[in-house]
Amino acid sequence: MPRKVDHRERRTQIADALMRVAAEHGLEAVSLRHVAAEAGVSAGMVQHYFRTKDEMMTFALDVVRVRSEVRVGAAVQALGPDPAPRRLVRALMTTLLPLDEESRADGRVALAFLSYTAVRPATAPALREGTTQMVGFIAGLLPGGDEVGAAGLLALMEGLGMYLLGGQYTEEQALRVLDAQLDLLFR
Amino acid sequence: MPRKVDHRERRTQIADALMRVAAEHGLEAVSLRHVAAEAGVSAGMVQHYFRTKDEMMTFALDVVRVRSEVRVGAAVQALGPDPAPRRLVRALMTTLLPLDEESRADGRVALAFLSYTAVRPATAPALREGTTQMVGFIAGLLPGGDEVGAAGLLALMEGLGMYLLGGQYTEEQALRVLDAQLDLLFR
Repeated sequence: MPRKVDHRERRTQIADALMRVAAEHGLEAVSLRHVAAEAGVSAGMVQHYFRTKDEMMTFALDVVRVRSEVRVGAAVQALGPDPAPRRLVRALMTTLLPLDEESRADGRVALAFLSYTAVRPATAPALREGTTQMVGFIAGLLPGGDEVGAAGLLALMEGLGMYLLGGQYTEEQALRVLDAQLDLLFR
Repeated sequence: MPRKVDHRERRTQIADALMRVAAEHGLEAVSLRHVAAEAGVSAGMVQHYFRTKDEMMTFALDVVRVRSEVRVGAAVQALGPDPAPRRLVRALMTTLLPLDEESRADGRVALAFLSYTAVRPATAPALREGTTQMVGFIAGLLPGGDEVGAAGLLALMEGLGMYLLGGQYTEEQALRVLDAQLDLLFR
């Protein structure tokens, strides 16, 4: 097997271990030792692939981002050709909300990363770029290309995600809020 | 000084130190040793006042909550008697958004707590109760007592707060989104 592929695979394996640790015990439990034990490798091996915790976190955040892009892509495919804009926007939002166990685990990791990046803005450029792209894409689907409405919908979805993870809102309540917002934006 | 007052004061002093550590270095830097050093007391002293990290975190979250209630109270007072519902709702939301350095520091702590509570739902009952009360209060100010609209507005504010802390949205953009949402709800 070529060396480059092996390197990326090993990094992904370690990042997956990091995410399992973060999802189960919280970000403050993410240590070199803990991640190494979870990945079934030595601490020295983790250090070989990631020089710093920041580097490991940034890579893991990228894995979460790619995984959510794949989920979004699959959800869009499932709608068939030329879906109505409102259906497409709703599918995007529900795919990104933590409504099943897998996306709930990813959501907990994303939340942990957000609180991590809030004190280290330098680690979050990919996050910012992703948000800008998503706002542009949603705006293109809203009546009148509504950029402010798109930015609001994305913020609403992010807040709903937090309240779902924290248990403040039930799934039913979150979906009712989302649909009411779509009523306002597509009125 | 009576013993009880001293106890609460000391706990608040330690919780303040915890919040400074969390705001500056992130939640994963919050350790007994680090908090003790920041508070200028011994690690044994911290352990005397808080048996576990969970206990310390729960108390600190309560301090943040009370502080934000005080800020909200002051903002409402400043509006004078019988403010228009829309002005009152806007003042509530802007007070809760991380728009100045103090509320940004509190926001980073709140975000850290949210990611902490997302893996330990048992530590967050006060958080949930506060959200329910706030939704009820806002609903009473919206046309038709709109509960779903109130729940959506609060989620939108929470998402805007995250994007402000993460640097995805600028202050100007966040306020434009908030005002557009108030336009929709008070239309």
